[in-house]
Amino acid sequence: MMRKSENYRLADLGEFGFIDQIARRVRPTPDIKIGIGDDAAAFRIPPGCLALTTTDMLLEGVHFDLSLCDGYSLGRKSLAVNLSDIAAMGAKPHSCLLSLAFPETTPMTLLSDFVAGLLEIGGEYGVALIGGDTCASRGGVVIGITLYGVQEPDKIVQRCTARPGDLIFVTGSPGDSALGLKLLRDGIREGRAVARHLDPTPRVREGLALAESELASAMIDISDGLLSDLGHITKKSSVGARVYLEKIPLSQEYRAYFGLEEKEGYALALGGGEDYELLFTAPAHRRSEVEALFGQFDTAVSEIGEITTVPGIRLLSSSGEVVHGFAAGFDHFSVRREHTS
Amino acid sequence: MMRKSENYRLADLGEFGFIDQIARRVRPTPDIKIGIGDDAAAFRIPPGCLALTTTDMLLEGVHFDLSLCDGYSLGRKSLAVNLSDIAAMGAKPHSCLLSLAFPETTPMTLLSDFVAGLLEIGGEYGVALIGGDTCASRGGVVIGITLYGVQEPDKIVQRCTARPGDLIFVTGSPGDSALGLKLLRDGIREGRAVARHLDPTPRVREGLALAESELASAMIDISDGLLSDLGHITKKSSVGARVYLEKIPLSQEYRAYFGLEEKEGYALALGGGEDYELLFTAPAHRRSEVEALFGQFDTAVSEIGEITTVPGIRLLSSSGEVVHGFAAGFDHFSVRREHTS
Repeated sequence: MMRKSENYRLADLGEFGFIDQIARRVRPTPDIKIGIGDDAAAFRIPPGCLALTTTDMLLEGVHFDLSLCDGYSLGRKSLAVNLSDIAAMGAKPHSCLLSLAFPETTPMTLLSDFVAGLLEIGGEYGVALIGGDTCASRGGVVIGITLYGVQEPDKIVQRCTARPGDLIFVTGSPGDSALGLKLLRDGIREGRAVARHLDPTPRVREGLALAESELASAMIDISDGLLSDLGHITKKSSVGARVYLEKIPLSQEYRAYFGLEEKEGYALALGGGEDYELLFTAPAHRRSEVEALFGQFDTAVSEIGEITTVPGIRLLSSSGEVVHGFAAGFDHFSVRREHTS
Repeated sequence: MMRKSENYRLADLGEFGFIDQIARRVRPTPDIKIGIGDDAAAFRIPPGCLALTTTDMLLEGVHFDLSLCDGYSLGRKSLAVNLSDIAAMGAKPHSCLLSLAFPETTPMTLLSDFVAGLLEIGGEYGVALIGGDTCASRGGVVIGITLYGVQEPDKIVQRCTARPGDLIFVTGSPGDSALGLKLLRDGIREGRAVARHLDPTPRVREGLALAESELASAMIDISDGLLSDLGHITKKSSVGARVYLEKIPLSQEYRAYFGLEEKEGYALALGGGEDYELLFTAPAHRRSEVEALFGQFDTAVSEIGEITTVPGIRLLSSSGEVVHGFAAGFDHFSVRREHTS
């Protein structure tokens, strides 16, 4: 990308000039037969594999706020949320498309930083940018990403295959992203929680290892919130779940901020969303294999409950009482909540 | 989709309810292994084929105007513009993703009609809807479509492979879509040109037949405008082109509206865009094969010029003089032009 001044606008370069600049920065991978610059891209799927695909649309003012994030992080996060979906299927990320609509007054540095962030995280996970679409927006910035992955059919992990008796595991420490957003809105720009919100790490290697070892019986990534996403697993699998409140792994930063004398302190960990951690189930007799597998990663894994035959999710306190009062998670049209970055 | 009153809003149904309603209307195809309802969809590519993919983002107020089009046509057109890209590669459409962002006040009938139109044209071309994303918009409606196609590597037709001496062909009658938009803005809602603008026919069967017969040496669809899209072929192929003004096929409606005493009457046919006709090149000795192939379709095909070694595109009058003064076509950030539906 060209780097001129902040005042350098896209109108000076034109749509095709902008696309050419992106194309020149993309490093080709052997599976990509036709990349940026034709009516469609063409790629090869390894023999014996299925193609997997996921898409996310991110809107300025709904999913991100340009006063709270920079273009580079936004580029990374835009691909990360899709990488997280491919990870949750136990698949290997492969290639992606980028659609980008923005006002013609958008500074080139923002666009250049966005593309740099997207290409950088793509490179970290072997994802080539193979095409897309750019257009003018009369509203804010709109980002559309479509990501492809590949995996053998028998190794793909779905949501609908959890079985009663399976243990429930979660990676990392949910709630940090929602805490990070809260801190950002309070003017705090630093710290681990803020970083988790602005630049989440998709658990690609962990998801792939769980699939290759055939340990996970069902898997999802936490985008809507832990309880809501667990609800997707239980509903699709026609099972229920028991979750132990004191087993929810909380980060030091989270504990320091909320204290946990009152159950309300758990609200963001259970319903905050945008964690992009993996939530998965595994047969109880394979607990030690799960722990051994995560020994090779820096990522924590915690057992938080088990799958039951009784529909619904019961949250239990350390004394065994049912805990009520936590929202089910994020629904774009039913619950008023805002994302940022 | 449910059909209640115009006042029935998405908030009554919720995001997941809306997705469930769409999922129930989708007819599965054998290649789709995982459809709507997981973190990602999974599909099979026929052995020996590459996967092709294209994406388009359509924004209210930029690409369409809801006062000039209905939800059903918009749904059809949203997929049609992507089908046209897959057609221009000579590939067979396969499956698609839909991202949809809209204000929570959007009437359910509009959304329901949109999905109905999209699924209907999908059914006409064997395209299954396999996933997507829905979210709230604080601006207008935003539509993102990603379409997959399949084709054997040797049969895919690119832009970069036109050779000097090749003839240039175009399907249908370019300019009708731009005329249709002009008429719509003047309050006229009927007629062939308006229909071509609101509900263009992607030339899928024609593109596939050209690829299977290996007749087309290079191909593109006309989205930006005939001269602009021909410019993409000549630039990518490192060649030039000669185009004969009087050979440009114009519809009766177009001729009746503009008259063609003055060359200005050709402006929309040469630069109007959104025709979604195929523009392709073929070796001169295969002219009769091209004509024979199109004998099986209702679609007209016209020879309009030839590929040359001299860079650039020269437009020639019937007396052999070079004609100047036609814009090169549409660039989202360089030229002021508006789309509607």
